[in-house]
Amino acid sequence: MDTRALVFDVFGTVVDWRSGVAHDIRRLVPDVDAEAFADAWRSQYLPSMDRVRRGELPWMNLDELHRASLDVLLAEYGVPDAPESVRAELVLAWHRLDPWPDSVAGLEQLKERFVIASLSNGHVALLVNMAKHGGLAWDTVLSAELFGHYKGDPEVYLGAARLLGLPPEQVMMVAAHVDDLAAARACGLRTAYIHRPQEYGSKAAPPPVSDPEADLSVHSLTELADHLNT
Amino acid sequence: MDTRALVFDVFGTVVDWRSGVAHDIRRLVPDVDAEAFADAWRSQYLPSMDRVRRGELPWMNLDELHRASLDVLLAEYGVPDAPESVRAELVLAWHRLDPWPDSVAGLEQLKERFVIASLSNGHVALLVNMAKHGGLAWDTVLSAELFGHYKGDPEVYLGAARLLGLPPEQVMMVAAHVDDLAAARACGLRTAYIHRPQEYGSKAAPPPVSDPEADLSVHSLTELADHLNT
Repeated sequence: MDTRALVFDVFGTVVDWRSGVAHDIRRLVPDVDAEAFADAWRSQYLPSMDRVRRGELPWMNLDELHRASLDVLLAEYGVPDAPESVRAELVLAWHRLDPWPDSVAGLEQLKERFVIASLSNGHVALLVNMAKHGGLAWDTVLSAELFGHYKGDPEVYLGAARLLGLPPEQVMMVAAHVDDLAAARACGLRTAYIHRPQEYGSKAAPPPVSDPEADLSVHSLTELADHLNT
Repeated sequence: MDTRALVFDVFGTVVDWRSGVAHDIRRLVPDVDAEAFADAWRSQYLPSMDRVRRGELPWMNLDELHRASLDVLLAEYGVPDAPESVRAELVLAWHRLDPWPDSVAGLEQLKERFVIASLSNGHVALLVNMAKHGGLAWDTVLSAELFGHYKGDPEVYLGAARLLGLPPEQVMMVAAHVDDLAAARACGLRTAYIHRPQEYGSKAAPPPVSDPEADLSVHSLTELADHLNT
């Protein structure tokens, strides 16, 4: 295996979006069930990106998609009069999510041997803010925004390899989501699955413990570093 | 002043291209005057980018431009039979240039308060390799390659501000070259000039000590940090 670079899904794989978003909802909209609201907000993510992917919406960054679904949800949850300042602040909750406990150390270890980059549907500004907030030591930030395509589309995975100056087989996609890995694999990338059982909270159906299609399945980024750095 | 991000020219401003390239020429093509060859190679940089900017050449990354001018120069310098492996290795000399003595510390200090990113005509892969080689702690790598335009063109400066999610006046361009700063200023960016008297060696005409049009003129990145961090 001659992997030279690792590219990482971020939401759910490197950072805990649910706790972070629920925290800011609790702070800014105290009358709603914060976890349920966070889950509902996140559930709009794939459908809204799919509308962009099908061409029903022009390219919109994640702030714009989050804002559109937030406005709908606030009305549904009985808070139609939430002020503009609260809405703007909630959208920014997605910029300052905390890493999972193993993420910072795992990335530092992996960076010693590999180029490490985000490869997220979040836009560049969001990912830069998040890296500074959480201490994520990316060699560079790569984002769907750079390719005008959201993940799932091959342009993102092939574009990442091209910008890194590497053939796809020397790049490994790391994610907690089997669909993201399957799309990367279809483009020739190697893949590593991270089991993140708490991504959707302890009451949700758990994700699979491993991905038999992936080159590797691990439970943390430090475990990934132990496997790949030796 | 509410500068939020600093974007940096790299060749000559952050790294010493002349010493690094001459070092590899001396190693790989011992029969030529290494410094003269490095200067001649660098002198092809602006004309070859201008041919891309005028549309006479398709978009080519810096490796491709360097390779084309290298092949011409090797013939001119009496080494027309230099093997392919030497040519490929020389092109990669531009990926592993050493920082000026103040660069690593200055960037670390500036990173505490600002988003710091490259904004170079070098392509992403080159800049990532160079950052790992020299320990340049970019928050992210920004490159002309992302915009399909070389510097001088407004797309690069405005594109950098857009990707960072900031209005141009909250972004400061840092460079040792007054033309780069003038182009950034025309796009609304703030500017800082770094005096790098050794960029072209001690025998060349020295660059101006300061740029009266810039917001700041300094002699090192640590001096820039002292000015901006207080």
